[in-house]
Amino acid sequence: METIKVAILGASGYTGIELVRLLLAHPHAQITAATSRASAGNRIDEMFPRFAHLTGSELSFMEPDMEAVARTGAKIAFLALPHGTAADYANELLARGIRVIDLSADFRLREASTYEEFYGGTHPAPDLLRQAIYGLPEVYSREIATASLVASPGCYPTSILIPLLPLLREGLIEPGTIIANSLSGVSGAGRKAELPLLFVECNESVRAYGLPKHRHLSEIEQELSIAAGQKVTMTFIPHLIPVNSGICTTTTATLKGAPAEVEQALRTAYQDSSFVRLLGRGKSPDTKNVTRTNFIDVGWEFDDRTGRLLLLSAEDNLGKGAASQALQSFNIMSGLPETSGLLTV
Amino acid sequence: METIKVAILGASGYTGIELVRLLLAHPHAQITAATSRASAGNRIDEMFPRFAHLTGSELSFMEPDMEAVARTGAKIAFLALPHGTAADYANELLARGIRVIDLSADFRLREASTYEEFYGGTHPAPDLLRQAIYGLPEVYSREIATASLVASPGCYPTSILIPLLPLLREGLIEPGTIIANSLSGVSGAGRKAELPLLFVECNESVRAYGLPKHRHLSEIEQELSIAAGQKVTMTFIPHLIPVNSGICTTTTATLKGAPAEVEQALRTAYQDSSFVRLLGRGKSPDTKNVTRTNFIDVGWEFDDRTGRLLLLSAEDNLGKGAASQALQSFNIMSGLPETSGLLTV
Amino acid sequence: METIKVAILGASGYTGIELVRLLLAHPHAQITAATSRASAGNRIDEMFPRFAHLTGSELSFMEPDMEAVARTGAKIAFLALPHGTAADYANELLARGIRVIDLSADFRLREASTYEEFYGGTHPAPDLLRQAIYGLPEVYSREIATASLVASPGCYPTSILIPLLPLLREGLIEPGTIIANSLSGVSGAGRKAELPLLFVECNESVRAYGLPKHRHLSEIEQELSIAAGQKVTMTFIPHLIPVNSGICTTTTATLKGAPAEVEQALRTAYQDSSFVRLLGRGKSPDTKNVTRTNFIDVGWEFDDRTGRLLLLSAEDNLGKGAASQALQSFNIMSGLPETSGLLTV
Amino acid sequence: METIKVAILGASGYTGIELVRLLLAHPHAQITAATSRASAGNRIDEMFPRFAHLTGSELSFMEPDMEAVARTGAKIAFLALPHGTAADYANELLARGIRVIDLSADFRLREASTYEEFYGGTHPAPDLLRQAIYGLPEVYSREIATASLVASPGCYPTSILIPLLPLLREGLIEPGTIIANSLSGVSGAGRKAELPLLFVECNESVRAYGLPKHRHLSEIEQELSIAAGQKVTMTFIPHLIPVNSGICTTTTATLKGAPAEVEQALRTAYQDSSFVRLLGRGKSPDTKNVTRTNFIDVGWEFDDRTGRLLLLSAEDNLGKGAASQALQSFNIMSGLPETSGLLTV
Repeated sequence: METIKVAILGASGYTGIELVRLLLAHPHAQITAATSRASAGNRIDEMFPRFAHLTGSELSFMEPDMEAVARTGAKIAFLALPHGTAADYANELLARGIRVIDLSADFRLREASTYEEFYGGTHPAPDLLRQAIYGLPEVYSREIATASLVASPGCYPTSILIPLLPLLREGLIEPGTIIANSLSGVSGAGRKAELPLLFVECNESVRAYGLPKHRHLSEIEQELSIAAGQKVTMTFIPHLIPVNSGICTTTTATLKGAPAEVEQALRTAYQDSSFVRLLGRGKSPDTKNVTRTNFIDVGWEFDDRTGRLLLLSAEDNLGKGAASQALQSFNIMSGLPETSGLLTV
Repeated sequence: METIKVAILGASGYTGIELVRLLLAHPHAQITAATSRASAGNRIDEMFPRFAHLTGSELSFMEPDMEAVARTGAKIAFLALPHGTAADYANELLARGIRVIDLSADFRLREASTYEEFYGGTHPAPDLLRQAIYGLPEVYSREIATASLVASPGCYPTSILIPLLPLLREGLIEPGTIIANSLSGVSGAGRKAELPLLFVECNESVRAYGLPKHRHLSEIEQELSIAAGQKVTMTFIPHLIPVNSGICTTTTATLKGAPAEVEQALRTAYQDSSFVRLLGRGKSPDTKNVTRTNFIDVGWEFDDRTGRLLLLSAEDNLGKGAASQALQSFNIMSGLPETSGLLTV
Repeated sequence: METIKVAILGASGYTGIELVRLLLAHPHAQITAATSRASAGNRIDEMFPRFAHLTGSELSFMEPDMEAVARTGAKIAFLALPHGTAADYANELLARGIRVIDLSADFRLREASTYEEFYGGTHPAPDLLRQAIYGLPEVYSREIATASLVASPGCYPTSILIPLLPLLREGLIEPGTIIANSLSGVSGAGRKAELPLLFVECNESVRAYGLPKHRHLSEIEQELSIAAGQKVTMTFIPHLIPVNSGICTTTTATLKGAPAEVEQALRTAYQDSSFVRLLGRGKSPDTKNVTRTNFIDVGWEFDDRTGRLLLLSAEDNLGKGAASQALQSFNIMSGLPETSGLLTV
Repeated sequence: METIKVAILGASGYTGIELVRLLLAHPHAQITAATSRASAGNRIDEMFPRFAHLTGSELSFMEPDMEAVARTGAKIAFLALPHGTAADYANELLARGIRVIDLSADFRLREASTYEEFYGGTHPAPDLLRQAIYGLPEVYSREIATASLVASPGCYPTSILIPLLPLLREGLIEPGTIIANSLSGVSGAGRKAELPLLFVECNESVRAYGLPKHRHLSEIEQELSIAAGQKVTMTFIPHLIPVNSGICTTTTATLKGAPAEVEQALRTAYQDSSFVRLLGRGKSPDTKNVTRTNFIDVGWEFDDRTGRLLLLSAEDNLGKGAASQALQSFNIMSGLPETSGLLTV
C-alpha cells in the first residue's frame, strides 16, 4: 500500500492540530504541507512540542501558497480554515488536481441562498456547491469515495444528525417537534485570543449562546429535510461548558411509532457501523468515552408521560465532529479501510 | 434587633456547609446547633478550615438528637438531610416549638401519593404535608412568613419554575410543550464517597442522567399545574457538568402570545424582586455570575422560525437552589428584610 | 462612621474586579470612580453582570482622567494597573491630595536600581519611592496608617514573606538556603486576550515559568533581607495551574534552631493576627479554604532526615495576594477596624 | 512476529485501565486475562464504554485466581495492585513460569529493611527482591530484557530520576542539596471512593501532602545513591492539583560544574532515547504535551545568583509514570522494538 501525500491548510488551529495528530500516526498518509500564517517557517514540533520525536513532526509550517502546496506532491488537502476563506483555496487546489476535504462551512449547503441567509454575504464559489459531497460517511459513503470536494460536517450537526436521520427516514418522529440541546467543549470556539475564551472566563461557567439561529442549523435542517422527505425546521440550543473537547447532545421529538421501532431503526442503520456505538435504551453516553476518538455514542429513552423520544449522543467536537471524521472521508476517498488510523482510544 | 438562634441538621453535606457559611455571616442569626453523625464531636473550623477565625465556627458538631438541639435554644431549624429522614426530625422539632425549613423533598408535594410515585415507599409524615409551605419566596412569600414548616424547593425546580410561572399564569405558553434541559455542577449530587463523583470521573466529562422521570419532576409539575390552572406534564433532562456548582437551565415551549408579552409578564412578576435579575431578550445568563449568591438570572429569546420561546436561567444549585433560598425564607419567617445576609457576591 | 469615597483605576482587570466586589460590599466605602479604557461609558453591572442589583454597581466606568477622578470626591485611590503606568497616575493623584494604594510593582522597591534590574527601563517616579510604604499590614501596619502612598505587595511575595519573615527575624533558618515553589491560578496572569491563557491551553496543563529570575524576586529579597539583617538571595519557581485563583507556596530552608522554635516564632508573630491562620506542624493548607478571602493559611513540617524546614502557605492571589490585602491597608489608613468588610468567606 | 499473551491483574484501577488501553492497541500483544474483584464477570467494554468496538474489549474481567490466569496462556503479567498484595501474586505467577511486571512498590527496593521503614510491616516476599529489576529502561534496559520480575518505577520517582541520574553520575551536582517539588494529577491517588478525591473537593484546590517522608522517597534515594556512588538523602514535596493526569516536577540542586556540562550530560544520556525529550536550557515542559504518552519532557535552567540548577520535567503519571513505562519494559522483555505500540500521542 502506497503512502498518500496530504496537505493541511490552517494547521495551527485546534482542528488543524488534531488533523496533524491523526495524520502523523496514520499508516498510509504523509503530511507534505502544513500551512499556518502565524507559524510559517517554524517546525511543527517546535510550535507543538507534543509532537516532538514523531516521524514527520520536523516539517515546517508554510505560508498558504497553493502553488507551493501542490509542489509538495500532496494529493488530498484538508482545509481547516474559517468559512469564507476556504472556498478560495478549494478552487485553486481543485484546479491543480488536488482533492479537497473542507472542514469549514463553505460547501456544506446545497443552496447558495441558504449560505447567504445563515452566514451572510455572497457565497464565494457557488459553482462548486454542486459538486461538493456532504462528508457524513454514515450517509454518503459511496459519494465520498469518488468525490473531488468533500464538505466535512460541523461538530453540532454530526451529533444531531446521526441519531435523528434513521428515525426521520423511517417516519418514526414528528419532524416539527425536534429540539436539540448541545453542550460543547471550549475548543469548539477555536484557537483565538479572545477574552471570553480565557481560562478564567470559561472555568466554573456554563452558558447558552448563539440563539436562536446558530449557523449550524442550516446544514442540520438541510440533511433532516432530505431524510424526512419534507422541509424540517427545528430548535437548536448550544451551550459552552468547561471541558477542552466533547459534545453531548440531547434531542427530543414526539414519537410516532413504538419505542421498539426506535431501537430497530437505529440498529438497522448502524449495527455494522465502525464508529457509531449504540448503547441502547436507558443508557446515557458520556463525552469522556469518546474524546480523542472518531466514535459517536448514542443512547435513547422514551418518556411515556409526554410521548417524547429522548436521543442522547456524545462525540468529540474535534474528532467525529471535525478532524477524525474528515480522516474517515480521507480513508474512503483513498480506498483504505474506513477505520485506518482511527481505532486508537 | 435580636439575634435568632438556629440549628442546622446535616451540616456537613454540601448544602449544610453552605448554610453554615451563610449563617456565620448573617447579621441576625446565631448557629447554636450543627448536627453531623460523621463529624460529631469535632469543631466546625477543624472539619472545614475555610471557616476558621470566624465567630461561631468554634462550635462542635453534635449528634442529631432533637432534644439536645432544642436545649440549645434554637428557634428555627434547617434540615439539610436526605429525603425520608428529614420527616422524622421535622416532627420532633415541631413538637418542641421549633419552626422547620426542610431542604429535602419530604414536604414539597401536596399529595402523599405523588411522593410515593416519585420517591418510592410510603410518605413518612403525610399529616404534615398539609401544613407545609412550598418555600419559593417569589410565589409564597406571604405564607412563608407565618409558616411552621417550609419545604424549600429543589435546585432544578427553582431554575425551571422562576421563568415559567409568570408565563403560565398569563396563559402565554402551551403547557403541553414544555421541555427543560438543565446543566448542573457536581455538588448537586451531594458529598458522598462514590466512584462516579470522583474528580477523574467527572472532569472532562458531560452526561445526561436520571431519565426520563427525575424525582424533581414531581414538584415542578405540581407548581406549574397550579400556575396554569390545569394539569401540566413536561419533559426534564438533567446533565452533569464539571463545575463545582451552578445550574444553567434552558426551557423551550410554544409561545401563544406575542414576544413583547413575555417581557411584560416577567417584568410584572419580578421587577421588584430582590433576587430575580431579568436580563431581557437575547441575553444568556452565565452561572459564573450567580455562584455563591441567591440571585437567579433570567434571559429569553423567541425563535420565530418555530414559534418557540426559549427561557434561560442560571442559579447556584447550592444557593438559590438550596441554602441561600432557605435563608431567604428564614428572613421572611423572622420578619427580617428578605435580603438580610444575602447580598454578598 | 462616615463613608469614605474611593476610586479604582484599572477596574476591569481581575484585580480591579475583585476590588469592585469587595468595595461594593464594604460598610464604610463608596466607589465614586472606576476607570477602564476598554469599558469607559459602560455601567459596571452591564460589563460584569455578577454585580447587578447591588447598590453602587450602576456606576459607569470612566476614562482614566485624574482631574475627573478627583472631582468625584475620592479620598483614596486603588491603582490596579500594569507596572510603569501606575507611577504617572500616582503622582497626579497625590498632587490632588488623594492617598494612593498602588497594587502594581512601581513603588514596592526601595531602590530605583533594583526596579531597573528586574523590570527594565528607568523608574518612572524615583522620588516617590522614599515615601512609599510596603503594604504588608502584618509588618508595616503602623506606617500604613499614616501613609500617603502604599505599595501593596505582589501575590507571590505575600505567600512567601508571611511564613518566612518571623523565622528570619529570629535567626531560625539559614538565609542562603531558601527555595520557594509556588503554584498559582490563572487569574494571576491577568485578564488579557492571549493564546497561552485560553481555557484549552491552561486546562489539563501544568508548567513552571518565569525562570530563573521572576520579577517578584526583587521585593521578596528586599523584605527578607530587612528581616534577616543581611542580604538574602533565594530561588523562586512559579508554576501555572488550572484553577481560577489561589496560590499554594512551599518554601524550604535549612533550620538552624529547634522545630519547637518555629512554632513559637510563628505564634509570636501571628497569634493575634486577623488574617494569618496558623495550622501548626504537619498541616498542609489548601487553596480552596482561602479563595475569595483575605486569609493566608500557614502550616509547616520539619524533615529531620535533611534538616530542612518546610513552610506551606495558601492564599488567594486576588485576595490576600492583591485586592483584599489592599483593602486591609485601606481600613488601616482610614482608622477602621482592619477586618472591616473582609470577614466573608 | 507472534502475538504475546498477557494478563493484567488489577485491571479496573486507573493504571489498570491505562494498561488495557495500551495493550488493546498494541500490535504484538493480546490480553487473555484481566482481573478485577469488583468487576469480575463483566465485560471490559461494558464497564469501560470507551473501549467498546475495539478488538479484545469484549473480554470479561475475572477473579484474581492465578491458576485461571495461567490457563489463559498468558506469558507476561502486569500487576497493577496495591503494594503488599502484589507480592503474593508475583510468587504464584513466577512459579507458573509467567514473567511479571509489577507496578506496585513491592519489588522496587533492594533492601527489605527500607521497604519496612517506608511502607511498614514485614516485606511479603524478601527473597524475590534479589531477582527483581528496577524497571527504568533508560537505566536498566539490558537487565530488563532477560528479567523474570520487573519492578516498574513509581510515578514521582520516574519524573525525578530521569533528569537527575546523569548529573549525579557525572558528579555535576551536590548530592546533599537536592529538593524536588512535584505536582500530580488526581488519578495518581487511585480510583478509590474517598471523600478527598471527589470532584468538588479537588477542583479549584491545590495542596501539598505526604510530608515529610513520602513513600516514593525510598526508591528515589536508592537510585540516586547508586548513580552518585554515595548515600543520597533528599527532600521531596508532592502536591495534588486539579488535572486528571500529569506530573510536573521541579528539582533544584547546587551545581558543581558549568552549565554547559549539564546540557552535555543530558544529551549524552538521552540523545538516542526514544522517550526522553530534551527541551534544552530555558525551556519549561508542560504536562499537556505528555499526557497519554510515554514521553518525559526535560528542560533546565541555571540560576547564577544562587548557583542552583533547576531541573524541570513533565510526564503522565499513568503513562511514563506507570502503564506505558511498564509496556516499554514489556517490549524490551519480548524482544520487540522499545517503541512498539507507544508512539501515539
